[in-house]
Amino acid sequence: MSYSQTEIPGRETLLEARRRVSAYAHHTPVLRNSGLNEKSGAELFFKCENFQKVGAFKFRGAVNTVFQLPEQYLKRGVATHSSGNHGQAVALAAKMKGIPAYIVMPENSTKVKIDAVKGYGAELIFCENSLRAREEKTEEVISETAAHFIHPYDDYRVIAGQSTAAQELIADHPDLDIIITPIGGGGLISGTLLAAKYFSEKIKVVGGEPKGADSAFLSFANHKLIKVSHPDTLCDGLRASIGEKNFEIIDKHVHQIYRVSDQQALEAMKLIWQRMKIVIEPSCAVPLAVILANPVDFTGKKVGVILTGGNVDLPSLAAYFKD
Amino acid sequence: MSYSQTEIPGRETLLEARRRVSAYAHHTPVLRNSGLNEKSGAELFFKCENFQKVGAFKFRGAVNTVFQLPEQYLKRGVATHSSGNHGQAVALAAKMKGIPAYIVMPENSTKVKIDAVKGYGAELIFCENSLRAREEKTEEVISETAAHFIHPYDDYRVIAGQSTAAQELIADHPDLDIIITPIGGGGLISGTLLAAKYFSEKIKVVGGEPKGADSAFLSFANHKLIKVSHPDTLCDGLRASIGEKNFEIIDKHVHQIYRVSDQQALEAMKLIWQRMKIVIEPSCAVPLAVILANPVDFTGKKVGVILTGGNVDLPSLAAYFKD
Repeated sequence: MSYSQTEIPGRETLLEARRRVSAYAHHTPVLRNSGLNEKSGAELFFKCENFQKVGAFKFRGAVNTVFQLPEQYLKRGVATHSSGNHGQAVALAAKMKGIPAYIVMPENSTKVKIDAVKGYGAELIFCENSLRAREEKTEEVISETAAHFIHPYDDYRVIAGQSTAAQELIADHPDLDIIITPIGGGGLISGTLLAAKYFSEKIKVVGGEPKGADSAFLSFANHKLIKVSHPDTLCDGLRASIGEKNFEIIDKHVHQIYRVSDQQALEAMKLIWQRMKIVIEPSCAVPLAVILANPVDFTGKKVGVILTGGNVDLPSLAAYFKD
Repeated sequence: MSYSQTEIPGRETLLEARRRVSAYAHHTPVLRNSGLNEKSGAELFFKCENFQKVGAFKFRGAVNTVFQLPEQYLKRGVATHSSGNHGQAVALAAKMKGIPAYIVMPENSTKVKIDAVKGYGAELIFCENSLRAREEKTEEVISETAAHFIHPYDDYRVIAGQSTAAQELIADHPDLDIIITPIGGGGLISGTLLAAKYFSEKIKVVGGEPKGADSAFLSFANHKLIKVSHPDTLCDGLRASIGEKNFEIIDKHVHQIYRVSDQQALEAMKLIWQRMKIVIEPSCAVPLAVILANPVDFTGKKVGVILTGGNVDLPSLAAYFKD
């Protein structure tokens, strides 16, 4: 029997999340870049979640969930499956809380990721590299350990946790016109939508997706949840379809969803590396790619851009900089 | 006949430089990283000059010099030779002041660097790729244009300008025990030494050099200026011997100078990219390499580390991340 939060988080729940998260996560800086402002015609405010603990915003959702678990769940710990940032985030949050964490990872994960999760003291369980294999293995682990499952995005506690990035951004820059985030499973954008709803009068929230993983775009256009069964994009953090709870919030509140090609995302990623001197994941670059491809919608606007993470596999990424 | 500053800058001159520079340059952020603190045993405060305008601290020295030029020098503009950050810095400072800039660059400079200098509206003059060819071509340009020469480091105005990075760092973190910078021509460390002398009671300033370009180390050890005629290091920003004015300040005030191998610098560079998610030049990593190689001297200390710049040639750098 699983405990969770059953209602879309309201204003009070978001504020509670912010108090909870801010005790453990960095209030990340907002960087600006005059070259990119010129290039885009917009005034850009980059919220640097690549500087967040574990290198990604995912830590916020994990902390918010782990640190509100009722007493009786603590001893049995938490479990999740992830090949990426969510696994590290749950591992570190559990370590901070002093409870066990079980992370199911595909056996072909890179050594860097495996070492990171191990470094946070989590128990690693390997499985084959398919969503189905991961889910089955996770169920197995949970039935053995009775650990509490933390979904990477389809969970209101996680959504409230992710909202804290936008809450900080709005507090630091209340005069933004737009906030844009990439969309993978939809945890970040649904949290951002709620933050804008409760803490701003005028901010519109828009999303960006790779064309090869456009579940949110299709779902919003058709007003029903559409899953993309074989996502095909270089943006490895966005190879997911949105969740049900995420869809409900996105469909109701999002202003627009844009799609970009992998090529556009890569060009934007290079720009950010070269001009801003920061390391970001390819997924992170989707919002800037959207802005550059749609000048009419952004020119003259103050735009908050959430840079989601910086966990790149440098050796394989090096290939993108060859030319 | 050339105008310049003939005395080692005093406290008032440094404060004046700070006022002048802060009107045009970013007060760059200081980043911290718990993983690197753990690894080093020290408490590290990274002053991020890679986020500075033109991507390097060099902008400070250029601004301080250009914006104190007497009226009669303005119309004829400024000149320098540089294959790197100093050229861009002088070009941008001149653009801001609205005066001509003549930048002599080796003809084999990368397109990115050429485009950057052109983008700042400077006049580019190409020469062969040797220090001698550069100096001769620069003299030629100056005799034609009567432009004012700005040396990259052997100039008190430039030194006072570079001191403003440490001035900011000390103002933000007055309780540091040590500040460490890399040493190329010695502009940054001599400015840092003066800042520590005038604005701190206790901060010791130390320097780091690649073993293949150890002019400062040898000069300090022998208390006379020793030039290294064929510097050999991957740290392209540090392939210089220190200047006379720099030597005078270094010899009098520096606490210690350390040397590291290119391999140690590269390892430290990778650590900073992976852990801090920021883009830095190989030269920048020398101080962290020094700290990791000499734990006894840094353990338990609060150490300010000036990260000098982020202008890396990403395609060629990619090779370092292959393994």
